[in-house]
Amino acid sequence: MNLEPTIKPRETRARLVQFIEHEVARAGLEKAVVGLSGGVDSSLTAYLAVEALGLQHVWGIGMPYNTSSRSSIEDARLVTSSLNIHFDTIEITPQIDLYFERFPEADRVRRGNKMARERMSILYDQSYVLEALVVGSSNRTEGLLGYTTLWGDMACAIAPLGALFKTQVRQLAREVGVPERIIAKTPSAELWPGQTDEGELGFAYADVDRLLYGMLDLGLSDEQLVEEGFSPDFISRVREIMRANEFKRRMPLVPELD
Amino acid sequence: MNLEPTIKPRETRARLVQFIEHEVARAGLEKAVVGLSGGVDSSLTAYLAVEALGLQHVWGIGMPYNTSSRSSIEDARLVTSSLNIHFDTIEITPQIDLYFERFPEADRVRRGNKMARERMSILYDQSYVLEALVVGSSNRTEGLLGYTTLWGDMACAIAPLGALFKTQVRQLAREVGVPERIIAKTPSAELWPGQTDEGELGFAYADVDRLLYGMLDLGLSDEQLVEEGFSPDFISRVREIMRANEFKRRMPLVPELD
Repeated sequence: MNLEPTIKPRETRARLVQFIEHEVARAGLEKAVVGLSGGVDSSLTAYLAVEALGLQHVWGIGMPYNTSSRSSIEDARLVTSSLNIHFDTIEITPQIDLYFERFPEADRVRRGNKMARERMSILYDQSYVLEALVVGSSNRTEGLLGYTTLWGDMACAIAPLGALFKTQVRQLAREVGVPERIIAKTPSAELWPGQTDEGELGFAYADVDRLLYGMLDLGLSDEQLVEEGFSPDFISRVREIMRANEFKRRMPLVPELD
Repeated sequence: MNLEPTIKPRETRARLVQFIEHEVARAGLEKAVVGLSGGVDSSLTAYLAVEALGLQHVWGIGMPYNTSSRSSIEDARLVTSSLNIHFDTIEITPQIDLYFERFPEADRVRRGNKMARERMSILYDQSYVLEALVVGSSNRTEGLLGYTTLWGDMACAIAPLGALFKTQVRQLAREVGVPERIIAKTPSAELWPGQTDEGELGFAYADVDRLLYGMLDLGLSDEQLVEEGFSPDFISRVREIMRANEFKRRMPLVPELD
């Protein structure tokens, strides 16, 4: 069985462009602000926003920390110069380092989460000044696996790529014309040096996307998934990751009163 | 018609304590962390958390900015000393001021929102260290009116007071034994000097709670609400505020794909 999650590139492109256009207008706005990391998700988001709103209505904002690689910043600049959109860089290093002066023992997870939330906070601050909607870059794979910082990179007004698996993001990026160098590189949140998504997750996007597609979109049973070549360990591990991260996909819980 | 939103104090108290206990356990945790402002909402939240989890399992964290009044910090300390729970103070002034050095023209709304998001970020950072659930203090009135910073003070794991109007929060605070000085004082987010909730909203909690209760819980028509003494202007203004802030009550929008 073919478990590759594919898209119809032209239809999906048109649908997402229309979604952005519609939601920005519905918010009574004309502009979008996109946090640009140099990765494929945020780059594609910027490309789609420009198709929806026009280049004069899209602001890219780079928010590097010291550990962000020079090539990432260059890739973000490549996107904004290719699209000819406004680009600002706001360093987050000073305020992050200032906070952790109090907690020098803080591990990289704490530091990475603080960075992701600081970026959200800055994007929202800038969106207020620009009167722009915060357009996020989260994809469906990240959302399902909870590979995201709660109220950090997941927090935005609209997430145009939220219904696409990572492998589908790459397909759409090719269709839309995102520079191949950005599409081809190893995905990394760059929250610490040497971090890669797949290294941290412990599996490849190509594999987990096939599994998630079979599980969720085709509704295959575990037995069928094993027949398709997935190990029982991998299946149960991914199910457990999804379950444990369910809290990242909902608003704060409020009790029901009679 | 009686439009005062009331509660059955003992039943509500028991229900919210059980909610906190259940949700903390369901998250696989034993502890809660509560951001304490010295106001009635966060004070009551801490009282309920102690009833649910025991005093040794509740951490209060004060995160004052320069504009926070001395009396607020004292009120937060009054709560933690009355409850005999752990209390840490983490100043947010340095990192907030550092960010706005770049934007000296920033207005008080930008500064206030940045503070609220910084407090969320710190609470989550501390919750990671303590292995504690972030228990928020948002109430139903704030939620409906959007009188909250998106991904700031509204962002938490659970919001025990989320189903209570502000006037019901005060009733429950009396039942639970929150110091009267805290219950009686003028509500303020203290995001800038002299800010009060009611001054900023332009109406009193007592009035808007009666209106919201009549509108939402009793399902009264506008005609009936006018008969109850609400002005058509006030009714339409509150409806518009609710509508305009609907986006603060939901997760980021994701497009539907075929």
